[in-house]
Amino acid sequence: MDYPKDQAPGAPIRAGIPEHGRIPKYYAAKVRIGELLAELGEGETLPTERELALRFEVSRETLRQALRDLLLEGRIRRLGRGTVVAGPKLEQPLALASYTEGVRKQGRRPGRHLIGLDRFPCNAALAADLGLPAGEPVWHLERALLADDERVGLESTYVAVERAPRLDTDFEPDSSFYAYLHDRLGIGFGDADERLETVLATPREALLIGTPGALPMLLIHRISRDVAGAPLERVRTLFRGDRFSFTTRLGGSA
Amino acid sequence: MDYPKDQAPGAPIRAGIPEHGRIPKYYAAKVRIGELLAELGEGETLPTERELALRFEVSRETLRQALRDLLLEGRIRRLGRGTVVAGPKLEQPLALASYTEGVRKQGRRPGRHLIGLDRFPCNAALAADLGLPAGEPVWHLERALLADDERVGLESTYVAVERAPRLDTDFEPDSSFYAYLHDRLGIGFGDADERLETVLATPREALLIGTPGALPMLLIHRISRDVAGAPLERVRTLFRGDRFSFTTRLGGSA
Repeated sequence: MDYPKDQAPGAPIRAGIPEHGRIPKYYAAKVRIGELLAELGEGETLPTERELALRFEVSRETLRQALRDLLLEGRIRRLGRGTVVAGPKLEQPLALASYTEGVRKQGRRPGRHLIGLDRFPCNAALAADLGLPAGEPVWHLERALLADDERVGLESTYVAVERAPRLDTDFEPDSSFYAYLHDRLGIGFGDADERLETVLATPREALLIGTPGALPMLLIHRISRDVAGAPLERVRTLFRGDRFSFTTRLGGSA
Repeated sequence: MDYPKDQAPGAPIRAGIPEHGRIPKYYAAKVRIGELLAELGEGETLPTERELALRFEVSRETLRQALRDLLLEGRIRRLGRGTVVAGPKLEQPLALASYTEGVRKQGRRPGRHLIGLDRFPCNAALAADLGLPAGEPVWHLERALLADDERVGLESTYVAVERAPRLDTDFEPDSSFYAYLHDRLGIGFGDADERLETVLATPREALLIGTPGALPMLLIHRISRDVAGAPLERVRTLFRGDRFSFTTRLGGSA
């Protein structure tokens, strides 16, 4: 049998055509705009909504639904008053390696922007995760993650004050926290448990990252331990779902 | 300093309040409905939209936006004509272990439902992934993933026909493909590369899984190799983002 040309293994199966054979209009427009994006290439500007609606013979409303999907999926992005073809998603390895290394490997310039550093007595849940008595002082370090000056994520790190007593005066907030722990305090990472899920940004998060609120985000919860196996930090990192994918190598034994 | 009670490390920071201090109405309603969900507990039925709108003093439209968010995040689900408090997301380990094991470990009944098994000459991209000459025959096995009879995902497996010549007659489509390869054909898994991202379901996928189209999904691309390191299969698995999270243990070396 012959498979349609979009039947590539990375593509959705029989791209989006329901079994009953009715293709929603916005989806047909989305597929055709997708072909146009491939022709144009990364960074090129799309024709106006008016021109696209005329070309694909759909209403402005139908066209906007198609563009909204492509925007949420990170295939186009707004640039000034226009819309351009987006580049591929950044691939971040699921590894103890830092955000900085992952972004740099792909030829992008990583950065972090301090949102806030607070000190507060930890509640019971956080105490359990950090292996502390409840009420012990904990740092909350919140930073926006940047790639080429674009905000692409938001990271919250919780660590016991006793682990890093001078975090507020000693630590350069746009540098790597792991390098600080290792190089300045002699704390080495042992291992970590991560849990990854997709969530919607809260209004505050959307504002801090500069995204539309409806954008699906990838959220990674991490609890890491030092080389002696003692709990070290709890991290909550939110990545723009339109800008990131995560990779991992799974080892053997069937 | 005192942190508000929702300032748990698993929760969004200063839950959703933008820096300028204006909380969107739908978001305030969402937070309050979230508290109500915790009081009610899993499986309990929510009050009607009319009652909720009255209780929280918001318009029906604002209330629906809050409920839509909670639905996309998997915190509530529709049951018949009502809405009930959803249980926690299924945690699936990122491992070579099968879907079946992951679901069973959480006390849910796993299942697979055959959508289709096709045979077609592979294109250049698939040939490269499977280590075949282009045009060689390949199986495409497509199955819906079930948990307690609920459709929660959609899986496409691509494997060379020469690897499993009698897949169409020999293989029970609701059983584990990995067990079949191992037990019947003596093929052991070596390792695999995975890439995980969030995408929107296509109309066909939404129909097959039975979800609203706007639901964020988690998509895992896998290429696996046998114990000799030869490419074995390419898999594309789509999981409902409101029903799944993925876990991994990261090993040491700072």
